[in-house]
Amino acid sequence: MSKKIWLFDTTLRDGEQVPGAKLNLYEKLEVAHQLKKLQVDIIEAGFPASSEGDFNAVKQIAQKVGNTDDLMITALARAVKGDIDAVYESVKYAESPMIHMVLGTSDIHVEKKFSKSKDQILQIGIDAVKYAKTLMPQIQYSTEDASRSDFEYLWKTIEAVMKAGATMINVPDTVGYAVPEEFGAMIAKLNDRMKNLDDSVLLSVHCHNDLGMATANTLAAIKNGADKVECTINGIGERAGNAALEEVVMALSTRHNYFDAYTRVNKKEIMNTSRIVSSLMGIDVQVNKAITGDNAFAHSSGIHQDGLLKSRDAYEIVSPTEVGLDDMELVLTARSGRHAVKNALENLSIGHLTEEHFEEIFADFLKLADAKKEVYDHDLFILVENYFNKQTSSEKVNLHSDKFYHLEDIQVISNPIFPSASVKVRKGDEVFKASTVGTGSIDALYSALQEVTEFEVKLMEYKISSVSRGKEALGKVKLQVQYNGQTYIAKASDTDVIKASALAYINAINTIVVDNFIYIPQTV
Amino acid sequence: MSKKIWLFDTTLRDGEQVPGAKLNLYEKLEVAHQLKKLQVDIIEAGFPASSEGDFNAVKQIAQKVGNTDDLMITALARAVKGDIDAVYESVKYAESPMIHMVLGTSDIHVEKKFSKSKDQILQIGIDAVKYAKTLMPQIQYSTEDASRSDFEYLWKTIEAVMKAGATMINVPDTVGYAVPEEFGAMIAKLNDRMKNLDDSVLLSVHCHNDLGMATANTLAAIKNGADKVECTINGIGERAGNAALEEVVMALSTRHNYFDAYTRVNKKEIMNTSRIVSSLMGIDVQVNKAITGDNAFAHSSGIHQDGLLKSRDAYEIVSPTEVGLDDMELVLTARSGRHAVKNALENLSIGHLTEEHFEEIFADFLKLADAKKEVYDHDLFILVENYFNKQTSSEKVNLHSDKFYHLEDIQVISNPIFPSASVKVRKGDEVFKASTVGTGSIDALYSALQEVTEFEVKLMEYKISSVSRGKEALGKVKLQVQYNGQTYIAKASDTDVIKASALAYINAINTIVVDNFIYIPQTV
Repeated sequence: MSKKIWLFDTTLRDGEQVPGAKLNLYEKLEVAHQLKKLQVDIIEAGFPASSEGDFNAVKQIAQKVGNTDDLMITALARAVKGDIDAVYESVKYAESPMIHMVLGTSDIHVEKKFSKSKDQILQIGIDAVKYAKTLMPQIQYSTEDASRSDFEYLWKTIEAVMKAGATMINVPDTVGYAVPEEFGAMIAKLNDRMKNLDDSVLLSVHCHNDLGMATANTLAAIKNGADKVECTINGIGERAGNAALEEVVMALSTRHNYFDAYTRVNKKEIMNTSRIVSSLMGIDVQVNKAITGDNAFAHSSGIHQDGLLKSRDAYEIVSPTEVGLDDMELVLTARSGRHAVKNALENLSIGHLTEEHFEEIFADFLKLADAKKEVYDHDLFILVENYFNKQTSSEKVNLHSDKFYHLEDIQVISNPIFPSASVKVRKGDEVFKASTVGTGSIDALYSALQEVTEFEVKLMEYKISSVSRGKEALGKVKLQVQYNGQTYIAKASDTDVIKASALAYINAINTIVVDNFIYIPQTV
Repeated sequence: MSKKIWLFDTTLRDGEQVPGAKLNLYEKLEVAHQLKKLQVDIIEAGFPASSEGDFNAVKQIAQKVGNTDDLMITALARAVKGDIDAVYESVKYAESPMIHMVLGTSDIHVEKKFSKSKDQILQIGIDAVKYAKTLMPQIQYSTEDASRSDFEYLWKTIEAVMKAGATMINVPDTVGYAVPEEFGAMIAKLNDRMKNLDDSVLLSVHCHNDLGMATANTLAAIKNGADKVECTINGIGERAGNAALEEVVMALSTRHNYFDAYTRVNKKEIMNTSRIVSSLMGIDVQVNKAITGDNAFAHSSGIHQDGLLKSRDAYEIVSPTEVGLDDMELVLTARSGRHAVKNALENLSIGHLTEEHFEEIFADFLKLADAKKEVYDHDLFILVENYFNKQTSSEKVNLHSDKFYHLEDIQVISNPIFPSASVKVRKGDEVFKASTVGTGSIDALYSALQEVTEFEVKLMEYKISSVSRGKEALGKVKLQVQYNGQTYIAKASDTDVIKASALAYINAINTIVVDNFIYIPQTV
């Protein structure tokens, strides 16, 4: 009988540790909602002890995404009381919460990192599990650097923490050192001993890709008895990243005859999830990335070889429609119309609105779309949430659209002596003007825009891309700015790259307005 | 005893089939030179029957890079006389040439693609090997889609072509369908039978990455007896690409205790090769790509965790210096000076110049650097080649630097009504001016530049990137233009993105001048 494999997604924890990929609260919620749509079994939502922001994000994901018993929400703790408490306090709002704790088992980790004896470390682990167990029933224990650990010490640890109450044992190949044959053999041996001790405890693996074998190691573990696997979308994560969820899922499905195992994942949402994660985190997917790269499928790479035309099977083992390539999330704009907005709300499982409620939300949507240009699912989500918060507190709905900025006029002059820019923006009934010189056109433009808006932002990244074919060429600008320690991403496009640059800046400012003044996020 | 694994690089054949990655002759030569420095054993230089340009590139690589007996040069042929002749006529100039031919063995390929019986296909393969064998001794036979073939038919084919004279048998997992355990078992079985028949014939594998297992399958084949592996730099190639050379090489080295095998590759050149291929082909490497991604190493991702500080081994199994991360190719500019140019020439194995020759070449270099801004190894290579061609034909050395364009002045005005540009360029003693309006600043600028230069180019891609931190922010522009069916890439940077855009265009035009008027490539 085909075996169900539990899918644990750590995009929001291990994936988010990628430098520059930090998400804000609403972006995290959007990713979590999408992972729920993708039907993963467990979401690791963050590392709550690391910061208040992370704590709050985990809590909100537990409340708003974890409100169903077929999706478990967890978060990471080191084996110390403070970390465990932080996880408990943030994940407890989920219907099905879990504490995930990690402690090293390899000599390198135990001796060099902690400067403690193996017995001392083992006892710390046991005590931590026992403490966590007093808080909630579901506990996962990760034996960090397991693949480089002494096998009998590894087993001694697993046996002890199982007896202390751990309900899932996760065996990480922390540095991507394993090869499939060896790793599979280790998992087979552990699985055998574990099932003898208590066959209700799940055996899990977490593989890194330092030598390019994360996916193969994960699959070898499944073939050898693992019940659960940890993955990230697009394989992002520390260093060379983690096993890619899309590769593991599609290998199990394409090679079902070999693995005889399946996941609950809705494969049609794979491409969608990949694009959302890539776009929100700002991490481009390599064109030849398996499954989610632009060229992954023969049909999309423009190759129409003789063989492919005669028989698609000759060169294609996964069909692009299987992973939802033709069925992507639409980004809403002011021109999207009622039907598209209704559709998007239904996809977010917010379909039970009265006509009156919908019309008022649609009016808010239009104001937001006008200010932000591109409206994503997470915007829509907080729009609705905000609407109902105001309703229950019996205040009048008001999107404060007089706080948004609009670009009225712009002139930029590029020359080798004094690149200069003049801008005119409107905010509600007020009009602001400025003219500055800079070291370059964009520098001048952004100095002028900084002057006329009230936010001191730091420009982190600025990218223009365009594929010019004739006069319809569009310049697409993508910005990353920092305000108050938070990162905001904004985009804009126009046939003039200078105007697109100005619009992207205004969109970034309006996104800051939304986050800081329009919606008041609940505090911890 | 540790076993030597032959490394066959197909970046210039399978890799170059990636849409948009097409290289011109000099770029191909640069990649081939770099692969020689990397010390691969075999370079597959192209598919000569596909076009005259490909034929000529293979021939020049055979002549100029294959002039040593420890580097084999090969190229691809289908099992038809025309293809085999084209390979023979182009690779024969190498000291150690080989013909590589491919023919399907799976039912899907044999029946659906060729509409022939298995026996007919087998006979075609035997006849093709026999014919190729009359041309040169080294013949590789690839059994396309081997991993989905009936094993006994696959073996019958291998046995027959070995008897017909094939000296290498390559077993491709053409569609990336294999899993390591299964693929390893198949290789073990084939290896056993092959070594019984004739142990001088090498067994090779060629793995694709459609399910993310190309590297693991390649390594499983090595563990099970394969003598040779086919890879590409950065894993580029059709669809999801091929096994990544850097991953296979570093896994063999890092896990030497497990594989007991090695390659001849100079690991210090891995990072260099990755950057050159990525930059010339315009294919970005994902930040978390194993070994060659920007974040592949803990130290480069800015993470300084407690564990890492206490012991690097805790999180790093490959050292960045091992793969030459701190030892990159320097791009030469007009400010590089004699010492740097001499160094670069020596790295290209052109170190035996008299002082007089060097001074004249250095003078040419300065003119070229002035026109092109960034001088790469392949420019230097053709500069020297051109110098000596002129010498032997007893003409006076003359770089025709009066054919290059220089940007003298520029003014661009961006506004919502008429974005316009005025430019002034110089070519030798002539000065040209133009002023145009456009749909955007760049459109106006490029229309004006098109007017004042003599080349009708098509803009294929236009990218600006910059990381702005204060006033030193540099806008980097990368262009891809087409002229006469050839693609040219050019870059420029300046604090003003508009000026950088103009400079990149001028650099692209000067690159076209170099290729079309300054150096006269030898014809076939």
